[in-house]
Amino acid sequence: MMILANATVATMQGGYGLIPEGCVVTEGETIRWVGRMADLPPEFDGPRQDLEGRLVTPALIDCHTHVVFGGNRAAEFEMRLKGASYAEVARAGGGIVSTVSATRAASEAELLAQALPRIDAMLAEGIASIEIKSGYGLDIETELKMLRVARRIGQERRVRILTSFLGAHAVPAEYKDRADAYIAEVALPALRAAHAEGLVDAVDGFCEGIAFAPSQIAEVFGEAHRLGLPVKLHAEQLSNLGGAALAARHGALSADHLEYLDDLGVEAMAAAGTVAVILPGAYFTLREPQAPPIAALRAHGVPMAVATDCNPGSSPMTSLCLAMNMACTLFRLTPEEALLGATAHAARALGLGDAGTIAPGLRADLAVWEARHPAELSYRIGATPLHARIFGGSLV
Amino acid sequence: MMILANATVATMQGGYGLIPEGCVVTEGETIRWVGRMADLPPEFDGPRQDLEGRLVTPALIDCHTHVVFGGNRAAEFEMRLKGASYAEVARAGGGIVSTVSATRAASEAELLAQALPRIDAMLAEGIASIEIKSGYGLDIETELKMLRVARRIGQERRVRILTSFLGAHAVPAEYKDRADAYIAEVALPALRAAHAEGLVDAVDGFCEGIAFAPSQIAEVFGEAHRLGLPVKLHAEQLSNLGGAALAARHGALSADHLEYLDDLGVEAMAAAGTVAVILPGAYFTLREPQAPPIAALRAHGVPMAVATDCNPGSSPMTSLCLAMNMACTLFRLTPEEALLGATAHAARALGLGDAGTIAPGLRADLAVWEARHPAELSYRIGATPLHARIFGGSLV
Ligand SMILES: [Zn+2]
Ligand SMILES: [Zn+2]
Repeated sequence: MMILANATVATMQGGYGLIPEGCVVTEGETIRWVGRMADLPPEFDGPRQDLEGRLVTPALIDCHTHVVFGGNRAAEFEMRLKGASYAEVARAGGGIVSTVSATRAASEAELLAQALPRIDAMLAEGIASIEIKSGYGLDIETELKMLRVARRIGQERRVRILTSFLGAHAVPAEYKDRADAYIAEVALPALRAAHAEGLVDAVDGFCEGIAFAPSQIAEVFGEAHRLGLPVKLHAEQLSNLGGAALAARHGALSADHLEYLDDLGVEAMAAAGTVAVILPGAYFTLREPQAPPIAALRAHGVPMAVATDCNPGSSPMTSLCLAMNMACTLFRLTPEEALLGATAHAARALGLGDAGTIAPGLRADLAVWEARHPAELSYRIGATPLHARIFGGSLV
Repeated sequence: MMILANATVATMQGGYGLIPEGCVVTEGETIRWVGRMADLPPEFDGPRQDLEGRLVTPALIDCHTHVVFGGNRAAEFEMRLKGASYAEVARAGGGIVSTVSATRAASEAELLAQALPRIDAMLAEGIASIEIKSGYGLDIETELKMLRVARRIGQERRVRILTSFLGAHAVPAEYKDRADAYIAEVALPALRAAHAEGLVDAVDGFCEGIAFAPSQIAEVFGEAHRLGLPVKLHAEQLSNLGGAALAARHGALSADHLEYLDDLGVEAMAAAGTVAVILPGAYFTLREPQAPPIAALRAHGVPMAVATDCNPGSSPMTSLCLAMNMACTLFRLTPEEALLGATAHAARALGLGDAGTIAPGLRADLAVWEARHPAELSYRIGATPLHARIFGGSLV
């Protein structure tokens, strides 16, 4: 039993759920009790850890990452800033193609070694659960390799990994102008093979002019349903193809990005209970002209999550606190919405019923911060100092 | 003697100054030699540290910070995002007034304890020199206290601290509408007292409608000249008062912020050799509508530095790599310009002749990165992993 005493507890039930002179009791991997110090039942009488007023929150959850990939895109970043056009970058082998090449070329061990420093940076910021997507393989073998690396991260580190199959991320060069064939010959067989190997927790896609049409995404979702897997979608990032409404019709856990989401999409998400995953890192890097419709999402009660979108092209970011700060500064989320977005709503975006808030019976995944108030987590531009991370009831 | 072998060296002389299979030799606190491994003179035959191709740069220099302060402004950040007006924030005791109150109330030991975690975050990113300003005291005693804390940081940590007296930062409540009296009765006497105590390396001011007029800044600069101290200025951040040209006329080391700088200001800075210190953290947080005139600064050959502006109100940021990334993404600096801005040009902004590049005879302040190319330092949104920090020839 662990008694975290003299804490400022943010339970994140409904909002901050602040308990100023609070206490959390854990036993094994589970939260047993949370409340005011003064109300601590006498049965919990073990040794106490005095947190001296420090803030305790649910451990953070990064619900949208592409953290497994080969290489980096610093050279392309530099080319662009030196004035190269997209065509010139492409001719130099840049863009997603370069990440696909590097990911195909890397061994499982190499991909793991490259991902772990990024994972460690995330854990140092109080994260307990990370979603990781495939989607830089775009061939059957490499899609499976990426997902195996994601699973291995969960063995190498004290962190829960949720995998998403993202075969429908981009059309590889060898299927140029043959996206239907790519879906039929690569994406669907890869999904079935990955699922058979136990590598898939959810199925994702990228619905966009430069990626896949709604009809192609619907095919992938259909296969996911047959396999009994939940779905989610990269939707309305660069234009409005009605992807969020499509995702909502398929009962999606989340629709992500959403800069070009319209009212119909908002209403469809609200009706379906689909979470809106906000990704300010990509918006910032791509200097997108339009922000997601936060006010409409808020008005319709669509739960909003915030994630890093950690990826080598449009969001080379590992700090979820920085994503929260950007969500506040760029999109005008309140710090409370941002923290809900990295805890309770992120859990919902991943279909996790046992994490994201502090309540008896839930997993004891907690973060103890060098902070006094939860607004501090969004206030700094970058990481907030972590005092301790508790994963499944163990101090790690 | 330390021989850093098999390094990718960016000397930052003129540009990256890249040496792909490079080597740096240090002796005592000083760089003895830098060049290609193949050219290493036989006299340097001690044990070698094999860096396995890792990037070595000059240690970074943060040339504009307000890192010593009391309290934080998370509550105000939250109020604003909940829709409070500036007047409501002010009525609730927010704004710089709250930082002044907290800084006045804190003891020297408390201010030091609050600053050190921020300093440690900076050092973890390969920084060796930090400029620290006063300016949250606005009374003689507290201005001196802040500068004493800054000096103590240089004793508590392996870092070089450069202090700037910033008595002319804001008009305190007790001098409302009496800025001239504040300059005469507080700022100038505080400057003389701080200088007599050896606490001042340079003199700064804030030239702005909400702060001090050019004539008042000129008075402070006049006193600095009498004391033999270099000057610098917060100029053209929110409007154009001709502050940069004023600073240039006074031979300023730097003019900082510069969002509203005009051509005359650019030309004056170019003629005087005044460095333009670019502060994207404040631009980002304040969502300023106008960026500094980077193209004009570039065309006129004005050296550009990049800094965190670490402060509790407009830039609660400790990551200089994040400032570099923002300078690239928001202001379109190239990664090479951003790194020059955090090394060679930052040194120049502080009047440091012995740091900021890798060359024989200079201080052995170096950073070894988990990176292969200097563009990576600006590419990530946030910190780049540091492998080792070398301060005055010692691994720290
Ligand atoms: Zn994504
Ligand atoms: Zn400043």
